[in-house]
Amino acid sequence: MTEYSFGNFTVQGFRGGAIKSGIRGKDRLDLALIVSDKPAVAAGVFTTSQVKAAPVVLGYERLKKGKAQAILVNSGIANACTGEEGMRNAKLTAAMAADALGIAEELVQVSSTGVIGMQLEVECFRFGIPKLAGRLSPDALGEVALAMMTTDTVPKTAVREFIVAGRPVKLVGMAKGAGMIMPNMATMLCYLLTDAAVEQETLQAMLRQSVAQSFNIITVDGDTSTNDTVLILANGKAGNAMIDTASPECALFQQQLDEICRELALKIVRDGEGATKLVTVRVNGAPSKAAAEQAARTIANSNLVKTAFFGEDANWGRIIAALGRSGVIFDAEKVSIAFDAVVMVENGIGRGREVEAAATKVLKQKDFTVTVDLHGGDGWAEIFTCDFSLEYVTINADYRT
Amino acid sequence: MTEYSFGNFTVQGFRGGAIKSGIRGKDRLDLALIVSDKPAVAAGVFTTSQVKAAPVVLGYERLKKGKAQAILVNSGIANACTGEEGMRNAKLTAAMAADALGIAEELVQVSSTGVIGMQLEVECFRFGIPKLAGRLSPDALGEVALAMMTTDTVPKTAVREFIVAGRPVKLVGMAKGAGMIMPNMATMLCYLLTDAAVEQETLQAMLRQSVAQSFNIITVDGDTSTNDTVLILANGKAGNAMIDTASPECALFQQQLDEICRELALKIVRDGEGATKLVTVRVNGAPSKAAAEQAARTIANSNLVKTAFFGEDANWGRIIAALGRSGVIFDAEKVSIAFDAVVMVENGIGRGREVEAAATKVLKQKDFTVTVDLHGGDGWAEIFTCDFSLEYVTINADYRT
Repeated sequence: MTEYSFGNFTVQGFRGGAIKSGIRGKDRLDLALIVSDKPAVAAGVFTTSQVKAAPVVLGYERLKKGKAQAILVNSGIANACTGEEGMRNAKLTAAMAADALGIAEELVQVSSTGVIGMQLEVECFRFGIPKLAGRLSPDALGEVALAMMTTDTVPKTAVREFIVAGRPVKLVGMAKGAGMIMPNMATMLCYLLTDAAVEQETLQAMLRQSVAQSFNIITVDGDTSTNDTVLILANGKAGNAMIDTASPECALFQQQLDEICRELALKIVRDGEGATKLVTVRVNGAPSKAAAEQAARTIANSNLVKTAFFGEDANWGRIIAALGRSGVIFDAEKVSIAFDAVVMVENGIGRGREVEAAATKVLKQKDFTVTVDLHGGDGWAEIFTCDFSLEYVTINADYRT
Repeated sequence: MTEYSFGNFTVQGFRGGAIKSGIRGKDRLDLALIVSDKPAVAAGVFTTSQVKAAPVVLGYERLKKGKAQAILVNSGIANACTGEEGMRNAKLTAAMAADALGIAEELVQVSSTGVIGMQLEVECFRFGIPKLAGRLSPDALGEVALAMMTTDTVPKTAVREFIVAGRPVKLVGMAKGAGMIMPNMATMLCYLLTDAAVEQETLQAMLRQSVAQSFNIITVDGDTSTNDTVLILANGKAGNAMIDTASPECALFQQQLDEICRELALKIVRDGEGATKLVTVRVNGAPSKAAAEQAARTIANSNLVKTAFFGEDANWGRIIAALGRSGVIFDAEKVSIAFDAVVMVENGIGRGREVEAAATKVLKQKDFTVTVDLHGGDGWAEIFTCDFSLEYVTINADYRT
């Protein structure tokens, strides 16, 4: 791996690695493993889609015991909508990994990402897994982030180090995702590994809270995947006293987890298919939190709004049109809209040409915030989105075929 | 008008015409009038957006009396989010038309379409309207269809002739709309003119029913406008016995109205911004009509589905992913999906490469139908959509600026 520097992307007691197994041709890393030296406490959050890929169904089932030791992930084929054969293959490939690693089968989590509706090419796994198992190392975890990329243009990793009751603790995360990204779990995979000791139910609750404020408030294209998975493994190697809800360190760990999830989520939006800008849509003054979120999501998913961002056009009319159809009740004559600090609309009326130049300057930035105030309550929400470019269409008209 | 043949686009007792008033520069028709020789029975349906443009608010109010004699429409500026000044301008321009035509002010309906947030340039109306009023003719109604175009590439008109109790009756319609098109009234204007005599409440009920099965089941980009308006004027010149709910001719008129609305709605989708294909998304076997519609709309609005249509890629995985996030409850293992007659998915599983070539052939067509069967009830629905091309992004990144 010379193209990417993964810096200090290691964590005690975890090894990883990836190979070119042939699923995606000869020249792409497409199969990867993460292994903990000992069974780790594990928690996970999966897609809310009614259509769940075989690895998601299997992973959810296995996670009920709260333990995992390895994660096997492939890109190229999603193993979704593949029926009984798909489930057999998910179990079979997990068993291959368990065999090669000498661990219990039910401690293996599997993930797949790629085209829906195709069966896994089991031979690639049969030949690839033993080879892969032989070359795992603590330093090669970053390869996993490369192997799970699909339309991603960059691997996405993040690292946190902190002290838990006198013990240094590490938390690393890697994620993939660029399209089919929509609140309530994007087409994304994310693995978080920590050497901290954390009690399982506490870990699950913390993960759920972090995901709600990170992966669940991003959108690229409003589509949700069949394969979304966030897993966290905590192997306790740091030797800290077990963190549970009663621990004073619980808040610290939550904060670190929140931050790493937010960092990875924003990396996904920034690498959104064809994206050139990261835009924060903030709605204030809504009748409730839920209403604020509904309004923010409608704006953040509007093609007309997103193409205007791409065109660097401060066309706030499209924002107010999206608001108007969002289903949220508000008084159109009270709405204000600002691009960063430039207020474009007050009391539902545009301020006109005087602010146009300043607003256009904001839109020319790589990152900016659209703030909408409905002046109708205390509810607020933020959604992170990207612009909508020609490249998005090119990528998605060509992907698969 | 040499570019377009409007054929037999006349109807007894109605005159129309358009001019280049300067709202959109020197070279575009942008201001138009339709006038009935006598006050007509009128009915209308307006945008469901919380944000309603001034002409929509005014039109809705005036329509309560059930009568109208003229429609003044401009393109270029939507007169939406323009506050009290916008409402004053809507009333003022209507009064100018009433003056020029010598009719009562409250019998004038006004429509505007174009950029949100800008005030109307009243001088263009002041100079334009008298000129326009002087050149109205029964043969120039087609010019109205041209003048109200924005990103439309073709004017959209339709004609029906039929016999009501021995009397020949005519019904003509003209519509505009290409973007901000989403069920529950697209960014569209549609005027329907008939010389039939129809009782007002009957006309309103019939219009509502026709719109539900035409303009409300199309989508281009999932966005809804602040200005959507469908108006029908019935001036009774045909001399038929007044049609009301008790008339045997009521069903015939409803059918004709349904057909003309459907024809115009499909013309809008076919001319959707950047569209190259007209796609019918049909969902069968849903637990209810509402569930079927929700599923069909989610598919019809998915960027990933629509870019795959543009790429002529039979990527049914994206259809099933859209279904999965639609919020509709179904059994993923019962779903079937077909492109026209080519069944791609049965019992939730793809039929694989054997049908790929046949499916791709379907997708290469200009028009095709995607049929999804959830095998979970009797609910069914159809939504008409288009593909999503590079051109859509180009149009919408550049529009306005």
